[in-house]
Amino acid sequence: MISVDGALKAVLGAVKGTLGTEDVHILDLPGRVLAEDIYSRCDIPSFDYSAMDGYAVRSSDIKGASGDNGIRLEVAGEFRAGGDISAKVSEGRAVRIMTGAPIPQGADAVVMVENTKAAGGIVEVFEEVERGENIRLAGEDIRNGDLVLGNGIILNSAHIGILASMGLSSARVSKMPRVAILATGDEVIAIEDEINPGKVRNSNAYSLYVQVKESGGIPVNKGVARDSRESLRDALKSCLDCDIIVASGGVSMGEYDYVKDVMKELGMDEKFWKVAMRPGKPNLFGTIAGKPFFGLPGNPVSTMIGFEVFVRPAMMKMTGCRVGERKEVEALLEEDIKTKKGLRFFIRARTRWNNGGYVTKTTGPQGSGMLSSMVKANSLIIVHEDIDTVKKGSKVKVRFLG
Amino acid sequence: MISVDGALKAVLGAVKGTLGTEDVHILDLPGRVLAEDIYSRCDIPSFDYSAMDGYAVRSSDIKGASGDNGIRLEVAGEFRAGGDISAKVSEGRAVRIMTGAPIPQGADAVVMVENTKAAGGIVEVFEEVERGENIRLAGEDIRNGDLVLGNGIILNSAHIGILASMGLSSARVSKMPRVAILATGDEVIAIEDEINPGKVRNSNAYSLYVQVKESGGIPVNKGVARDSRESLRDALKSCLDCDIIVASGGVSMGEYDYVKDVMKELGMDEKFWKVAMRPGKPNLFGTIAGKPFFGLPGNPVSTMIGFEVFVRPAMMKMTGCRVGERKEVEALLEEDIKTKKGLRFFIRARTRWNNGGYVTKTTGPQGSGMLSSMVKANSLIIVHEDIDTVKKGSKVKVRFLG
Repeated sequence: MISVDGALKAVLGAVKGTLGTEDVHILDLPGRVLAEDIYSRCDIPSFDYSAMDGYAVRSSDIKGASGDNGIRLEVAGEFRAGGDISAKVSEGRAVRIMTGAPIPQGADAVVMVENTKAAGGIVEVFEEVERGENIRLAGEDIRNGDLVLGNGIILNSAHIGILASMGLSSARVSKMPRVAILATGDEVIAIEDEINPGKVRNSNAYSLYVQVKESGGIPVNKGVARDSRESLRDALKSCLDCDIIVASGGVSMGEYDYVKDVMKELGMDEKFWKVAMRPGKPNLFGTIAGKPFFGLPGNPVSTMIGFEVFVRPAMMKMTGCRVGERKEVEALLEEDIKTKKGLRFFIRARTRWNNGGYVTKTTGPQGSGMLSSMVKANSLIIVHEDIDTVKKGSKVKVRFLG
Repeated sequence: MISVDGALKAVLGAVKGTLGTEDVHILDLPGRVLAEDIYSRCDIPSFDYSAMDGYAVRSSDIKGASGDNGIRLEVAGEFRAGGDISAKVSEGRAVRIMTGAPIPQGADAVVMVENTKAAGGIVEVFEEVERGENIRLAGEDIRNGDLVLGNGIILNSAHIGILASMGLSSARVSKMPRVAILATGDEVIAIEDEINPGKVRNSNAYSLYVQVKESGGIPVNKGVARDSRESLRDALKSCLDCDIIVASGGVSMGEYDYVKDVMKELGMDEKFWKVAMRPGKPNLFGTIAGKPFFGLPGNPVSTMIGFEVFVRPAMMKMTGCRVGERKEVEALLEEDIKTKKGLRFFIRARTRWNNGGYVTKTTGPQGSGMLSSMVKANSLIIVHEDIDTVKKGSKVKVRFLG
């Protein structure tokens, strides 16, 4: 039985590089993984502009101006954002200027409008200003040639805003992996079907579908394979057109053997089959035609945790994402927890900020069939395989979900 | 000038209830706000089932069984998940059972296969078991009638999984607000256009577009209004078919007066115009035909922060979302911060977990035009208006973004 760390290493080792890149329109970029370094090809802002409403002047012209000593300048024009900007400032002249408007040629400072008085084409200035005062310089935000966005980030609203301000209407991002989702088991019925004793609705296909989307992949539902070699063979073959294959079994043991056998027949290179963790000990992993294959256990919680712990990191690596890791913190445990040595436990929990630190407690019974434990959780308490008890009041490692 | 708290209260007070609800297919539910309480109409699991591979027995039949004292039972059939389940367990009989298969009629316990030996239709049992042993009961996860999901949550993968397991292929969610996005200003050009002195690319429409989507709304781009009453009137009128209107100005002061004037002409009930905050002091808010109107300042950072602080909470209230608040924590400040009394500061920052607690530092120069400060940020340091200095090593309030 392999450890969680060993298994994750094997998974990441099996993911060879990314799927390639594609150019995507700016409005479709949010959530995608940037696959290039973006350097600015311009200064932002692109011109020196006024930080105030006032008058653009030559600072030397108004040396000595004060409340008692107004200095009169001829107004040569008005600059407003987006308006005409042909006027120039020469000796004895000023240009009325609005916030955001470019600094006129010849001016080297701006006097605030509050310290002036204008009438009949003349402005009287009651304040002297330093050279450069109230001027914001071109490139103060970003300089031509600056590295603005590094590859591997997940693009968000601010990134989109800055791409737009640089005039980029698309960017190169990693292709999204297509992830085949296959449920298996004679007991699995469609969610619309009436439930009968022995039958279980196919909830895994739905939770996996959403997990794949949330992790930046394209879910491809491959239906349900029955517990026969033929059905499994057909279904698993049909998954090979995807980049990653995720199967989830029913609750019987025998079925795993079938999946494993059939996958080996189909050419899978098995990396591990059982992982020292709970939930989700049976966890088949291998590669087939260079593609990762995950045979997750069929219990709803085991499936979701197996996805979190193994499939999601594989998807992050496959998209070159450098920021996809779940946030981990420490929290004060609000109850005793009993685990089992030799198994790493992923315990569904609610973690909240309280009085300067995180506190956490479990979401109740933790059976691997108890999807309600997952529904209430915002996080996982991770208890290492070296220990079997964590006391109330101890610090525990917590991984946030989503 | 209104305080941030006062302004937010005015915004939330102006949002009257939600936009109504709609039924949405299960695969389109992720990210939507649930608008009903969901009670289970079945037990999950729906039947008692075996937790082990083994034999379903009457516990009374194997009283006294041990390694030295095998008790022989006739095998009446085999139950596997999804298989035939017609066999019954009567006195002296057992049924071979796989994990997940329903407990046969007449059986009250399961013996693990490891403690049995079978041959020729007979199984020898070497262990006695308690009544109920290795049996998982119907309803152990969810009972018929349990409240499973409460209204106001944002649906995620676990929620979708549990809806599927209850056989629900749709749910009632809040309608998504349509949010009109209008840029204003003669200086604003399309992102594809060549930049000229005095011109600024329309990045706000893009960052707002993504912010609206991220907050569960439908962005509706209404283009750019020019700095004339006519252009603004036409453009603002065209926004009235949406549920929320968000305008962002240029950088000039005069323009705000136009927006305010025109909106008042159109019938806006003004609630506030300036907020004691930085960035984003000019922040017009009112209602028109019962719809919230936000006149955000035009600087890229001010626009984004204005959205975060005011528009997003309004959207959350409009969708009945009870869990949309950004997470706030305390962090150790890694540098001195100088602010200004009377203004609440929203300082772009990078906050990370380090040695058992959060630490945070600013993303550098904080000018309201410095979109790069937002690009690097994962959080906002919020400095209250009552103070004007925070020293390195102090605890500060941090709000995570996204």
